[in-house]
Amino acid sequence: MPRYADMSKAELEAELAQVRARYDEMVARRLSLNMARGKPSAAQLELSLPMLDILDAAADLTAEDGTDCRNYGVLDGIPEAKRLMATLLDDEPENVIVLGNASLTAMYDAMVRLMLFGTQGSTPWAQLPEVKWLCPVPGYDRHFTICEALGIQMIPVPMDENGPIMDEVERLVANDAAVKGIWCVPKYSNPTGATYSDEVVRRLAAMECAAPDFRIFWDNAYAVHHFSDDPAEQDAVLDIAVACRDAGNPDRYLKFGSTSKITFPGAGVAAAAASPANVAEIKRHMNAQAIGHDKLNQLRHARFLNEGAGLAEHMARHGALMEPKFRLVTERLEAELGGAGIATWTNPRGGYFVSFEGPAGTARRIVDLARTAGVVMTGAGATWPYGDDPADSNIRIAPSLPPLEELDEAMDVFTCCVKLAALEQLLGA
Amino acid sequence: MPRYADMSKAELEAELAQVRARYDEMVARRLSLNMARGKPSAAQLELSLPMLDILDAAADLTAEDGTDCRNYGVLDGIPEAKRLMATLLDDEPENVIVLGNASLTAMYDAMVRLMLFGTQGSTPWAQLPEVKWLCPVPGYDRHFTICEALGIQMIPVPMDENGPIMDEVERLVANDAAVKGIWCVPKYSNPTGATYSDEVVRRLAAMECAAPDFRIFWDNAYAVHHFSDDPAEQDAVLDIAVACRDAGNPDRYLKFGSTSKITFPGAGVAAAAASPANVAEIKRHMNAQAIGHDKLNQLRHARFLNEGAGLAEHMARHGALMEPKFRLVTERLEAELGGAGIATWTNPRGGYFVSFEGPAGTARRIVDLARTAGVVMTGAGATWPYGDDPADSNIRIAPSLPPLEELDEAMDVFTCCVKLAALEQLLGA
Repeated sequence: MPRYADMSKAELEAELAQVRARYDEMVARRLSLNMARGKPSAAQLELSLPMLDILDAAADLTAEDGTDCRNYGVLDGIPEAKRLMATLLDDEPENVIVLGNASLTAMYDAMVRLMLFGTQGSTPWAQLPEVKWLCPVPGYDRHFTICEALGIQMIPVPMDENGPIMDEVERLVANDAAVKGIWCVPKYSNPTGATYSDEVVRRLAAMECAAPDFRIFWDNAYAVHHFSDDPAEQDAVLDIAVACRDAGNPDRYLKFGSTSKITFPGAGVAAAAASPANVAEIKRHMNAQAIGHDKLNQLRHARFLNEGAGLAEHMARHGALMEPKFRLVTERLEAELGGAGIATWTNPRGGYFVSFEGPAGTARRIVDLARTAGVVMTGAGATWPYGDDPADSNIRIAPSLPPLEELDEAMDVFTCCVKLAALEQLLGA
Repeated sequence: MPRYADMSKAELEAELAQVRARYDEMVARRLSLNMARGKPSAAQLELSLPMLDILDAAADLTAEDGTDCRNYGVLDGIPEAKRLMATLLDDEPENVIVLGNASLTAMYDAMVRLMLFGTQGSTPWAQLPEVKWLCPVPGYDRHFTICEALGIQMIPVPMDENGPIMDEVERLVANDAAVKGIWCVPKYSNPTGATYSDEVVRRLAAMECAAPDFRIFWDNAYAVHHFSDDPAEQDAVLDIAVACRDAGNPDRYLKFGSTSKITFPGAGVAAAAASPANVAEIKRHMNAQAIGHDKLNQLRHARFLNEGAGLAEHMARHGALMEPKFRLVTERLEAELGGAGIATWTNPRGGYFVSFEGPAGTARRIVDLARTAGVVMTGAGATWPYGDDPADSNIRIAPSLPPLEELDEAMDVFTCCVKLAALEQLLGA
């Protein structure tokens, strides 16, 4: 296929006619396919079914420290669950607080505490005239929703394959004490799949912040979500806790994670890890909110995943189901769009998403066209704060949920819609 | 036994010597007994063990509406869980939001939302110069902790056997718009065991409040926690939702409840019920905090309790374990203290507590004496805001956890400590 930019008007018109005919055929097939959210597939969920057999009526429901997991108590988690979540969060069990079923809730609640109480003696953020937050883009819409709900002003920061552009981050935090933090998905970032380089992690930890209570929300959602079980094919990320300690900013980070995409989304276990001072502060506030989280589910998870020792093997099974889907996505993108020179996309080694950049001004149109043809994508703009992608070019592709055959059909539709939108734009049609 | 008030000094001194000798014997026995918290006993927890067999790897994990309970989604709960929690909350499923594992968290989060966002268009409470809250006393310490954590000023309101003294409540809410709400445990109240009369419920619903956003936090923690399975021996409470609608204040209440003391505390299902306007508002805010709560646990509970139809039978088994303990407590109190005229106590038909009133100025001493003798009671003062019982007279007795034999020993110690403290006071010893 020649590059669209090199084609004559007549050639473009011929191509448009062909693409439009193909699109009309697709619409007529009345498909119903979904690539909107990063949901595990049924086959992935089946990997964790044996976990449901672990705690039955005859099981020992006592934690190793003697806690009866059926009764009240234990604000920060049973020891075996702390070890599991410490493995996931790349930290020590004593720095871990095991929480409810979702890291999203953990992050929202953490932000609410900062708004209501401040941190380590700072003014509660809700009492400040304004609070600003750095949002590497493209990013995760639910992060942005938390900021928007709490009236926190979001500032987009560009990313590259190594993470946020640190010159820009350092400039923004240096002189404005209203800039209180940054969202980070350090490994297999949502949606680009980028993994932060060691230099980016070190600069985040060490940068001079005008706000002494600046906080890095370190959402390590895809910490163990590799496509390959070969460590050489897996991304690694420097531990932000170590980097912050080394830089003399030991309280700057809050780590979050969960088993949502390891066992069952919504029925998993979430956790936070933080510095000793932050752990103590969080537990003091949490004491008014909770007696303890679901210890039976903690025990179930700890035993199923062998307190973290079983994570790699279990995640290899997930990876084996994910890799062919991501391969199919990039192969189809390359085959259909590689020559046209109208789009770029990422090619991650883990996580849940491919980030797609189409021609400026076409993302909404592409997503609309796909919806009309029965393929639901993540809404255009979702990867930017306030749903506002100024270039209207970024689309998040979430290939995990559909079976391979459906994914193939969906990519047919998607690539056709990209061409159609690009041609319409080029021809003013 | 003669009333202490009728005894001569010599008689009191003889009694003190005898009681003190008995107390010293008890201390020497180095007991380790706990009546501090309203925790179900091991025998009660065993009643729900069959629930752990309901969802195994071979079970159908699909909700009736087709939702795969293993995956993301469903912010407000699966239909069968809504029906279960509606039965518990005496409401309609469409007014129910199924939440996480604890009503305490549900109440804290609800209060946080009022602080950050206000309600139905009112000013966020955190932006007001002061927020006051009515606390019927004696009451539940964890309610008070929520207010204290959020800087809400607590105003104690006396209770009698019909609930809070409504003349006082009406006076306090009528002219002070800073008074934003009231804690209510309407049935088998913590700790008095009182159940609100229909008149109290109607007056709460209808009273003129200076604050248009006044909210009743209706913590129906013991809604089905009767000691007898005979409806004639069970307390009933008027539905606050109906009363508020009838009074033209349909948005005044928020109902809370959970299965904590029905199945497994900490591993149960909590829920809120509210007016349609409040449900919509809560869901709008929750959308930033959660994708959905643990649907597998919802399904497990809904099936085990037959969506509410199995509640009465299941709770009758709890009641059969609780009734002998409460009978023992009141019998031992009557036998040991009935004649001395130094104390009163409640005699509830359900719930988890007996409220004990000793001589003014002795509660802390009694609890200290008991602790020294190896019996841990709820801390004196805990039943009052800020831990400050101005009369230093109220003690919460929580008989649910210890087996009957241990409870008998613990009541031996407790009644001995009451007499010792009373005699010390009378004699200035």
